[in-house]
Amino acid sequence: MGEIYFDNSSTTKVCREAAEKVMETMTQNYGNPSSLHALGFAAEREQNDARAAVAGVLGARPEEITFTSGGTESNNLALFGAAGARRRRGSRVVTTMIEHPSVLNAAKQLEREGFDVVFLKPDQWGNIGPEQVFEAVTPDTILVSMMCVNNEVGSLLPIDAVPKAIAAANAPALFHVDAVQSFGKLPLRPGTAGIDLMSVSAHKIHGPKGTGALYMKKGVHIAPRVFGGGQERNLRPGTEATPLIAGFGAAVKALPEPRAQLDAMRELNRYCRARLAELNVAFNSPENALPYILNFSGGGIRSETMLHGLSAKNIYVSSGSACSKGSPSHVLTAMGLDRGRVDSSLRLSFSRFNTKEEVDIFIEALKRCFSELAKRA
Amino acid sequence: MGEIYFDNSSTTKVCREAAEKVMETMTQNYGNPSSLHALGFAAEREQNDARAAVAGVLGARPEEITFTSGGTESNNLALFGAAGARRRRGSRVVTTMIEHPSVLNAAKQLEREGFDVVFLKPDQWGNIGPEQVFEAVTPDTILVSMMCVNNEVGSLLPIDAVPKAIAAANAPALFHVDAVQSFGKLPLRPGTAGIDLMSVSAHKIHGPKGTGALYMKKGVHIAPRVFGGGQERNLRPGTEATPLIAGFGAAVKALPEPRAQLDAMRELNRYCRARLAELNVAFNSPENALPYILNFSGGGIRSETMLHGLSAKNIYVSSGSACSKGSPSHVLTAMGLDRGRVDSSLRLSFSRFNTKEEVDIFIEALKRCFSELAKRA
Repeated sequence: MGEIYFDNSSTTKVCREAAEKVMETMTQNYGNPSSLHALGFAAEREQNDARAAVAGVLGARPEEITFTSGGTESNNLALFGAAGARRRRGSRVVTTMIEHPSVLNAAKQLEREGFDVVFLKPDQWGNIGPEQVFEAVTPDTILVSMMCVNNEVGSLLPIDAVPKAIAAANAPALFHVDAVQSFGKLPLRPGTAGIDLMSVSAHKIHGPKGTGALYMKKGVHIAPRVFGGGQERNLRPGTEATPLIAGFGAAVKALPEPRAQLDAMRELNRYCRARLAELNVAFNSPENALPYILNFSGGGIRSETMLHGLSAKNIYVSSGSACSKGSPSHVLTAMGLDRGRVDSSLRLSFSRFNTKEEVDIFIEALKRCFSELAKRA
Repeated sequence: MGEIYFDNSSTTKVCREAAEKVMETMTQNYGNPSSLHALGFAAEREQNDARAAVAGVLGARPEEITFTSGGTESNNLALFGAAGARRRRGSRVVTTMIEHPSVLNAAKQLEREGFDVVFLKPDQWGNIGPEQVFEAVTPDTILVSMMCVNNEVGSLLPIDAVPKAIAAANAPALFHVDAVQSFGKLPLRPGTAGIDLMSVSAHKIHGPKGTGALYMKKGVHIAPRVFGGGQERNLRPGTEATPLIAGFGAAVKALPEPRAQLDAMRELNRYCRARLAELNVAFNSPENALPYILNFSGGGIRSETMLHGLSAKNIYVSSGSACSKGSPSHVLTAMGLDRGRVDSSLRLSFSRFNTKEEVDIFIEALKRCFSELAKRA
């Protein structure tokens, strides 16, 4: 039996198309895109091609895409860059309690630097209401940062409400969306959604780790965070990781049509929910979550113990996010779930390569784990 | 005829060992090193193995190595991190006029933030005297940042003098070395050389673009620059680019013994100098430069025109650094060379894969370019 990988929100296996492109760009088209010779120009073309592909999926212009080293860097650049550029126009930053640590901890740093940061609290399903956004956005709000899809439970945040709330308050705010979990999964076009800055990552969509991008709407200016040789229009200097960028482009081109894929994922998620219901688990993901993510607690066994038990059966799932190794989920905690439920939570995260057959194998393994571990306990 | 690539200080072709390791880590060992299951642990082992390899070359402990996205990020982290951590103990930062833009522009940003930054001026050969260092380092100096080898002319900077100057002034200064051009080429061990922070990059030593490291001496603390999920001991959060890191480790393991390699490079450089001397060029690199780099001006033809002429013959060289695309070299300008000489400069940068036969072909091509382009002019 091969491995069953249900941890695609942590990271994904690089798809064939992307892996081959990375290889080709490392060993053949290996120039520095800033070099003024044929090898440099070829590397630059490769990079432009990838930029056009990423822009294409977002309905954006290529010059609105800045490549970074990944989601964390994109999020940091967006938060510090926006706050730095607008600090004279106000001091309030609005975000949520269930952001990824790279937004949450950047926001906490902004708080230490003197900004007035508001962290919106979710309900028990990881949902945040539009009215909370309208209440939080004041005339001196300079930045709203909200994820599109929560990475632990898959809840959809009210990003539609943000541009309206900013307009209603007449606030000088930029709107940043951490779209790492929705990119390539939901057809979100920042240009028409009133989004100024949007973070995406390659390694969540079967592209390589170590690259991502920040969408920045034409006309928007933010303060740079890294200083150097002027690459990426001075916003992200450093020799571009051309092989990764090219691989990112290839992964984007290999993406299935998101709506059809979303239907397939809904079906897989529904099936998995139904089978899990046989085991009397408590679902932590809301019914209307992005179907790629399914979080539940059950069996009263610690997540880590379950992870190891499943891992021994070649089945890979997660407890919350891989980015907060070991510590109790800040998302489930903010949702007000009791500690026992938080500590026994498991997150399944699917990709287009997963199947119902894998779900069946997983369910049987989960049953065995529950009974084996219950005996031991 | 294959291509002749004499632009290895801009970037290098990824060696077979590193490319294969990247591929394997993208497609087989693709877990997130923070994931608490077997795939995660395997990725973490891969990363630890690379960390030990990088530490090994530096005579450092693995925990002194922080992986970053490359030289620019390492340099920025070192400068802002050190200045941020020590800003209460003094305000002076000492660096040079011939640093890489990622140090130079970070230092200029520190100047804008209120630090008193001293930029040491080189002589006509890109050399800086130890006495300049002693003069510049005052009791309120909190950071000295000096490259080991200049990336454009190969001059060796007086890094030995810095710890002595810091001790003599009794300054609370950290010492950072940008070792991007010397790493794997000179056997520099930061721990015994009085260096607190040292930047290295993978893609200059036939490793992949998009990864590098910052050595940080045990016991030294700097302020983080990126906030997120706690990876790399909170100093550089974000999902680790495991394939690149593993590839970096493989590239380090594939490095030849540096002293033997240095002898081979001295021989190649000497041969190239002798052949160039036939063409009456003016050397911009000092005689005692790191032999991997040979900068000269000649023929009175603009560098860019020469680059294109050579590129058309499948020969790839550089004008100064790839990181300051198009603008006149700040290094040669700081050395006081006249504009005509700056604008006609070419940099050859060798790697262990270059040969004397390639030098011969290059010299013949250069002769043809000189005469063809002189006719046109």
